[in-house]
Amino acid sequence: MVDYKALGAELSNWGRWGSDDQVGTLNLVRPEHIVAAAAQVRSGKVFQLSIPVGKDGPQMGLGGRVNPVHLMSMAPTDFEPHGMQVADDWIIMPLQSGTQWDALAHVGYDDKLYNGYDAREVGSRTGAQQLAVDAYSDRIVGRGVLLDIARLRGVPWLEPGTAITPADLEEAERAQGVTVAEGDFLLVRTGWRVRLLEQGRDGWMSSEPGLGIDCARWLHTRGVAAVGSDNWAIEVIPSETGDMLPLHCVLIRDMGMPLAEILDLEALAADCAADGVWSFLFVAPPLNISNAVGSPVTPIAVK
Amino acid sequence: MVDYKALGAELSNWGRWGSDDQVGTLNLVRPEHIVAAAAQVRSGKVFQLSIPVGKDGPQMGLGGRVNPVHLMSMAPTDFEPHGMQVADDWIIMPLQSGTQWDALAHVGYDDKLYNGYDAREVGSRTGAQQLAVDAYSDRIVGRGVLLDIARLRGVPWLEPGTAITPADLEEAERAQGVTVAEGDFLLVRTGWRVRLLEQGRDGWMSSEPGLGIDCARWLHTRGVAAVGSDNWAIEVIPSETGDMLPLHCVLIRDMGMPLAEILDLEALAADCAADGVWSFLFVAPPLNISNAVGSPVTPIAVK
Amino acid sequence: MVDYKALGAELSNWGRWGSDDQVGTLNLVRPEHIVAAAAQVRSGKVFQLSIPVGKDGPQMGLGGRVNPVHLMSMAPTDFEPHGMQVADDWIIMPLQSGTQWDALAHVGYDDKLYNGYDAREVGSRTGAQQLAVDAYSDRIVGRGVLLDIARLRGVPWLEPGTAITPADLEEAERAQGVTVAEGDFLLVRTGWRVRLLEQGRDGWMSSEPGLGIDCARWLHTRGVAAVGSDNWAIEVIPSETGDMLPLHCVLIRDMGMPLAEILDLEALAADCAADGVWSFLFVAPPLNISNAVGSPVTPIAVK
Amino acid sequence: MVDYKALGAELSNWGRWGSDDQVGTLNLVRPEHIVAAAAQVRSGKVFQLSIPVGKDGPQMGLGGRVNPVHLMSMAPTDFEPHGMQVADDWIIMPLQSGTQWDALAHVGYDDKLYNGYDAREVGSRTGAQQLAVDAYSDRIVGRGVLLDIARLRGVPWLEPGTAITPADLEEAERAQGVTVAEGDFLLVRTGWRVRLLEQGRDGWMSSEPGLGIDCARWLHTRGVAAVGSDNWAIEVIPSETGDMLPLHCVLIRDMGMPLAEILDLEALAADCAADGVWSFLFVAPPLNISNAVGSPVTPIAVK
Repeated sequence: MVDYKALGAELSNWGRWGSDDQVGTLNLVRPEHIVAAAAQVRSGKVFQLSIPVGKDGPQMGLGGRVNPVHLMSMAPTDFEPHGMQVADDWIIMPLQSGTQWDALAHVGYDDKLYNGYDAREVGSRTGAQQLAVDAYSDRIVGRGVLLDIARLRGVPWLEPGTAITPADLEEAERAQGVTVAEGDFLLVRTGWRVRLLEQGRDGWMSSEPGLGIDCARWLHTRGVAAVGSDNWAIEVIPSETGDMLPLHCVLIRDMGMPLAEILDLEALAADCAADGVWSFLFVAPPLNISNAVGSPVTPIAVK
Repeated sequence: MVDYKALGAELSNWGRWGSDDQVGTLNLVRPEHIVAAAAQVRSGKVFQLSIPVGKDGPQMGLGGRVNPVHLMSMAPTDFEPHGMQVADDWIIMPLQSGTQWDALAHVGYDDKLYNGYDAREVGSRTGAQQLAVDAYSDRIVGRGVLLDIARLRGVPWLEPGTAITPADLEEAERAQGVTVAEGDFLLVRTGWRVRLLEQGRDGWMSSEPGLGIDCARWLHTRGVAAVGSDNWAIEVIPSETGDMLPLHCVLIRDMGMPLAEILDLEALAADCAADGVWSFLFVAPPLNISNAVGSPVTPIAVK
Repeated sequence: MVDYKALGAELSNWGRWGSDDQVGTLNLVRPEHIVAAAAQVRSGKVFQLSIPVGKDGPQMGLGGRVNPVHLMSMAPTDFEPHGMQVADDWIIMPLQSGTQWDALAHVGYDDKLYNGYDAREVGSRTGAQQLAVDAYSDRIVGRGVLLDIARLRGVPWLEPGTAITPADLEEAERAQGVTVAEGDFLLVRTGWRVRLLEQGRDGWMSSEPGLGIDCARWLHTRGVAAVGSDNWAIEVIPSETGDMLPLHCVLIRDMGMPLAEILDLEALAADCAADGVWSFLFVAPPLNISNAVGSPVTPIAVK
Repeated sequence: MVDYKALGAELSNWGRWGSDDQVGTLNLVRPEHIVAAAAQVRSGKVFQLSIPVGKDGPQMGLGGRVNPVHLMSMAPTDFEPHGMQVADDWIIMPLQSGTQWDALAHVGYDDKLYNGYDAREVGSRTGAQQLAVDAYSDRIVGRGVLLDIARLRGVPWLEPGTAITPADLEEAERAQGVTVAEGDFLLVRTGWRVRLLEQGRDGWMSSEPGLGIDCARWLHTRGVAAVGSDNWAIEVIPSETGDMLPLHCVLIRDMGMPLAEILDLEALAADCAADGVWSFLFVAPPLNISNAVGSPVTPIAVK
């Protein structure tokens, strides 16, 4: 049985980019990666990878998260029609209720966050004083690579509890003719979005297919900048170790890797399967929210 | 004195892209524009154009808008330290309180919205049933061009009430060596962001420098896809016509052009002035919020 | 089959208390009723009639209502311990998500509200400009009378779909030895609170036992000031007429009677059954929210 | 100079009502007090003591508190007019932004709350697990006594920084012909509400007249159940001791006394001055919010 804390210690990036680093593995994205990613844009096709933000989202109220509430504060009919008629609106939402980034301040253990920051840097009054999501509002641009494990297995979605292994990732690389390289944004398709669309949110969060704990070392070795998936927690649930979200702990707290969750990879995956090109320009900045530990996002892939 | 309704009728794009069109002038962005914009990425420099989202924003409560409220729902210290410690948070915000897109459902007059939709398509119960912001969550990718009028005039910011004219825009084009073309995203710098940083929010919204009403025809002729600025309403306040936000009415309701407001163009403008390159890849999708009339955004420029 | 609009016309109180009246049947409470209600306080026992306000409330998201969200903005541990340590918090809630008052602006038909006010007096931008809940923040004091129909029938709760009739109310009066008089606040116990506690919220709102449409005339004749119940809508669901909430329409829009919903009458009913005294001092002001169409409330009964 | 911690130790009620007590000095209200308070109702006049809840409240954003935000989720015009037309609405508010109760969990020091509870009983994830405001949702009924210090001094309001002393309170008792007794709810009028109405919120919270630190012993000796005032913090600001809100610390954390703040005592005080009767039935339950550290309230006085 893997001890996630031992694994975290092995893969730790604390101090690697300075004692005051705020962005972890996003440091691996270098300007030449961005130039190369832009250079491979061929068709001008754009894919947005967010599920709809609103009351029909996947949240059941677990963990205190609910679906976003959208309310109008003005409607055109509130105004005399001959002059300007204005509509205005509000959103009230848990920042991690839909397609979203986990900031590095989102998860810790042993009273420490990534890079050794004290867990008390995050409090009710101040939010995250370190490792907040706005630290990387200009850092999520580069090459994206999609590995489609559900397609590899020929199923609409992997069964809940299926742990994706490094061997699976490498098999997908071979099958798709693509190799994950340093500074890449890796997107892993499990088909769990299809499960949500076809069977609804009941049970969608109680378990899921996802990355197994051994993928941490693989992501570390490859130098992945950040990882995203179409499930809600990146990793397999229940976990292989019996712990709660051990891959979160290692990736976020030890390696300093942000996670993108609840992506809609369907249209992008279909296009990649059709043209055989599984990499693209990826632009997915979080909102520039001060002191936040997560953010909704509209990730964009351009081919 | 310009009659904005007459001008709107002259420049109307209703029906131009079909009776059910939802995205207006964004139709002008073609795949080849996106390919060309990506191809001009040279240095891999990334600029994010959003002001911070949080309690220190520019809102004074005018028009019912307040600054975003960020609250924690979990903090690491809420958890037993030996296992995973989680932080989670919420945002409560008017969708147009900071750096943001106006959706086409945001403004109308004479009980009509863009493309002839009835103003009653937007209501308290449903939000915007037509022309909502999610319609273009995959449409804001292309070439951005920055015209820096404050720099042209050699001032930190234009005086409030200064109407920028088509002649000003063309003078900036010549001075900067760039030409606004069909399908471009045009960003206009007035310096009003500097005014906010240096003098605070008092008075920041009561008046401002910005585009004059004559720019509508120029934007139409050039085929601009969308326009953004560093002030809060794109256009000069008080308006030249005595109406409330007449350029909003013509651009949004008649031409179907989304507006990006409260941008932070400072770092991008400095870089453009330094290297003499005033165009870039621009990626700025709104959040994928169902039925919304606006959205916060982190616009990205890549050079 | 009763035509609720005809019944509403028959029982209409429009104009009865002036063309600008805002409080409807609450006008029936006179100072001498308040003095008499206070005079019957014998034991000093206090009962509060609200269910808990929070995430475990009865809402399923139907009608856009969710359960209240309670978030901390400061916790004592955010502060240096030797000085004052402060906790502060927020609530985000639909005003009618738990124990609550319906304001007279809550329901109308044929584009009219109580007293003939135009339905357009309620809009996104302004809220309720007439008949808002704060109009009666000092009017809900008087004699309360509890009629316990579930106890009368010897059941923990009435079956969903059971319509309570005027004959039922009068049978309860006789059995309990109490008579509903002009200016009284009438509370009707169906046992539906017990159903919620024992079986949870699934299905709790899809149907319910409650007042039948014929009770409107009885409430009018008796001069009841306001009526409350332990179900979520006062009235039987599905309705006897095939309409949606016809009793709401008649009571609120035609008679001008506020409704108190989702009360917890359990402890009060047990005490009344024990001592045979079914009336009490009733104090239940709404929050003084400007332009609101409902309000949470902690109703108090003193015996 | 008074040492507030020493004073707190002297006046401590920890353990007085059991090691698990949740309601502190509210234990001093006995049923006979409630019966007597009801018995003195003579005229049936009702006064509600809350300021309006909404965007025009006194909050400037200090301490993270803003004024309540009220939004509609349905308006009658959203519905086909021939059937029922419904209005529904939401509130988003800091629980202590207007007329409100401080719960006993609101303030502590030295990592302890009232009755010795650990400050960690209040956290982001759970709210207040002890001493929450709902613990006394059925406990705020009894005799209220108003002492009008502004009227005693013949001024519209006391100057900010004026510390009210025990001698002032006793002089008001003599002048008004009333004596504060065990179990009473004491309301103190400083006129600060008039200041808010006449001069607006600018500066309203930066200082204020209010109870001085010596009043703690007087309140303890008299056996007051709870104290309220028309200013925002009960106590004089700046404090006499140089500490932040020392009276809060002693009253809430050591004595276990809830505080009612931002009351509107104007109409009540005028009536009491007119008829010479300065006591009344007082009913002011908080909302029954689980785990909350404060609550809005509509306090009711009945004479």
